[in-house]
Amino acid sequence: MFKKEIYTTRRNELISKFSSGKILFLGNIENPINFEHNTYPFRQDSSFLYYIGIKSPRLAAVLDIDLGETLLFGDEMTIDDIVWMGQQQTLAEKAALSGISKLLPFDQLFDYLKKSDQNTLHYLPPYQSHNKILLGKLFNCPVDLLQPSIALIQAVAAQRSIKSVEEIIELEKAVDVAVDMHRLAIQMTKPGRYEYQISNAMQHFAQDQGMSFSYPPIVTKRGEILHNHMQFHQVHEGDLLLNDSGVETSLGYASDLTRTFPVGKRFTSLQEEIYQVVLHAFKSAEQLLSPGIRFKDIHLKACEALVEGLIQVGFMKGNSQDAVANHAHALFFQCGLGHLLGLDVHDMEDLGEQYVGYSTSEPKDTKTFGLKSLRLGKELEAGNVLTVEPGIYLIPELTQLWEQQNLHRDFVNYDFLKKHLDFGGIRIEDNYLIEENGYRRLGKYLEREVQEIYRLKDNAID
Amino acid sequence: MFKKEIYTTRRNELISKFSSGKILFLGNIENPINFEHNTYPFRQDSSFLYYIGIKSPRLAAVLDIDLGETLLFGDEMTIDDIVWMGQQQTLAEKAALSGISKLLPFDQLFDYLKKSDQNTLHYLPPYQSHNKILLGKLFNCPVDLLQPSIALIQAVAAQRSIKSVEEIIELEKAVDVAVDMHRLAIQMTKPGRYEYQISNAMQHFAQDQGMSFSYPPIVTKRGEILHNHMQFHQVHEGDLLLNDSGVETSLGYASDLTRTFPVGKRFTSLQEEIYQVVLHAFKSAEQLLSPGIRFKDIHLKACEALVEGLIQVGFMKGNSQDAVANHAHALFFQCGLGHLLGLDVHDMEDLGEQYVGYSTSEPKDTKTFGLKSLRLGKELEAGNVLTVEPGIYLIPELTQLWEQQNLHRDFVNYDFLKKHLDFGGIRIEDNYLIEENGYRRLGKYLEREVQEIYRLKDNAID
Repeated sequence: MFKKEIYTTRRNELISKFSSGKILFLGNIENPINFEHNTYPFRQDSSFLYYIGIKSPRLAAVLDIDLGETLLFGDEMTIDDIVWMGQQQTLAEKAALSGISKLLPFDQLFDYLKKSDQNTLHYLPPYQSHNKILLGKLFNCPVDLLQPSIALIQAVAAQRSIKSVEEIIELEKAVDVAVDMHRLAIQMTKPGRYEYQISNAMQHFAQDQGMSFSYPPIVTKRGEILHNHMQFHQVHEGDLLLNDSGVETSLGYASDLTRTFPVGKRFTSLQEEIYQVVLHAFKSAEQLLSPGIRFKDIHLKACEALVEGLIQVGFMKGNSQDAVANHAHALFFQCGLGHLLGLDVHDMEDLGEQYVGYSTSEPKDTKTFGLKSLRLGKELEAGNVLTVEPGIYLIPELTQLWEQQNLHRDFVNYDFLKKHLDFGGIRIEDNYLIEENGYRRLGKYLEREVQEIYRLKDNAID
Repeated sequence: MFKKEIYTTRRNELISKFSSGKILFLGNIENPINFEHNTYPFRQDSSFLYYIGIKSPRLAAVLDIDLGETLLFGDEMTIDDIVWMGQQQTLAEKAALSGISKLLPFDQLFDYLKKSDQNTLHYLPPYQSHNKILLGKLFNCPVDLLQPSIALIQAVAAQRSIKSVEEIIELEKAVDVAVDMHRLAIQMTKPGRYEYQISNAMQHFAQDQGMSFSYPPIVTKRGEILHNHMQFHQVHEGDLLLNDSGVETSLGYASDLTRTFPVGKRFTSLQEEIYQVVLHAFKSAEQLLSPGIRFKDIHLKACEALVEGLIQVGFMKGNSQDAVANHAHALFFQCGLGHLLGLDVHDMEDLGEQYVGYSTSEPKDTKTFGLKSLRLGKELEAGNVLTVEPGIYLIPELTQLWEQQNLHRDFVNYDFLKKHLDFGGIRIEDNYLIEENGYRRLGKYLEREVQEIYRLKDNAID
């Protein structure tokens, strides 16, 4: 945990934005895999971690705005719990470390909330079904009609969007470990290995540093599948490997890096050509990072850079600005340039992208293919931490569909493209802090130039 | 998947036990970690796997008893799904492999069920909150008042309790891989390693065989903590390591083995002495396995054997039968001797222990410390697959509590015991099939004699 004052300050700042009522933060539970007592690894809710800091399951916290105090609902271990799970720090001890002295049994939460004025009871959108049930019961309402507090969402999003010095230290720790983990992946990948072997070695490395994966890693020769969690392929000479993975510190802060590199010692000439296109778009986007610029505009600039390169390669044609204005680039770059990063790898995605990545004056485009997957569009502020992650992905099914629908024949060279539909995908991703005067890349430098990657490949690890 | 006829036969057999109505099997979803799209690894519900065999999320199946047919509710991938997750076998193809030709969109499930006679709609107890919400909405009832079908629970439990030839082949595959995985753990454990390093190496090994852990493994020097999932300790000369881990085949069948061994080359004399006590109890229990005997009686015989040994060691005194009759052994063996094993590591625990491990004539003792944790008590039948797993665990907090409460001073030598409260715990566990004429240990032999373990330790792997 951070020191106590950090949590009390965060809570006081949040309370100060409300005039009356109560704020409820529900912690997560241990979710069952295939029966109640066979559970997935526990992960605390990120807003709960931010304001309370305690990582145990089955907790809830109420911030009483009128009294200016915090109540923690949860249970101490019984002797049966100790037999099965071992003695741990008591809940009262953990609460004290968060500056909380009022501790009540968890089963009093419901009655306590029932007695509170429900019109001024603020809560965030639940994403785990367990908490949906609890709130549905509390408000006597179907779970799909629950009304989370927009005021609370906005207040939490505003606070969590601007990272403090302590948070940046944690985020840099997460990036530093991820950088070494990525180097290991580049150096150990060789023809004959399986994807999961690389993933396992990275997990092992992260655990040696006291960390864990911040999300299920994407380690795949089929990088064109954007969220590909299958890792059963053997990799061969000539394949690309896309590694999108990051770690989480013990306090819950995440990193999120991607590198794409040859399985053998060198890229093929087409791979190198397209890698350079992505790298150029990456650098074009990186240098634009600064407070006051809309991230959507940086996204569109990166798209233009990608199209310019794709025209050079021969996959596209025409004018790059027109192509992007018509969304023709989305055949190759179907997703967004980046997202906020913090206690969640897609920071605060549970609060709703409209509130976190956009603003009332800049609503999200939820229809256009490509833009609808851009999680962050609004004007950047100093203190934001985010990813930049352009890519080029050749998806055979999408190409076939667009061609059948005669989409963007002015911009896409279907005949040439169709000769390379087995290409795969390339993505490059780093993590950034927006500063008053521009940006700072978080953590150690991870090789990204072609020659730098080749040097790592020449120093293979067995 | 098994061949089609296995699923159709299983469904027909189940349907034949009902005269009218419908049977609903809800599949699992991908459960969120810290926001909706960051999800835990998907695991299909085991009864769904048993009757339908399809491992994809967001499916439901209805067995129409009157028409004798099966309907599968689920959705084919959209082009957006393909962009993010890659093209896979179609749902229609998967359904055909299960002998199902009627496929309907998932969002028609609710209306379909609403139109069905809800008094003859049978469903199993939901354990994932997502399915609790769906059923609560369907029956317009609070989730804690849902009424799963006892008739269906009993029919499913009866069918899944008797393993077929194909299932036994799968279970033996799972044991064989777990045996090699355990040998690796014994051979790689040495002073200076961390628990998670051993756990990671095992995971890697299992994945190399196309399998995964069947439950979060317990790999700990603090074996007295029964469900200890923390693996951050470094292990030292003189420590014991308890390794309780198993794997799951691609069809979902589990193994569940435990060995306890020295971190260094040899046990200390007290460790060896207590290991022999547990091994003797283990063999006493093993040789009793046969159809017609109550597993609770085997459990009690094993408890007696443990007490006899503990008297020799000096931790207990008096008559072993009296000690067990008075539940004094539960200070050292707080849990049960074993449980059913199959598609779940605690097979069908989601259906309720009373229905799965006990019977109307043999209800479970839910009060007595020790017996309340015995998951299986009823008479064994040929075709049952189960674990045998006696152990001795020295839990300081429990010892202190019993002594303060003056419990069982006639049977427990507190003064001598208190000198060894840092001992830890020892468990030995193998998996068995009950046959017409006795039992068969499943899979390859895993070293359990002290000298056999020493030979493995002498052949260390780096």
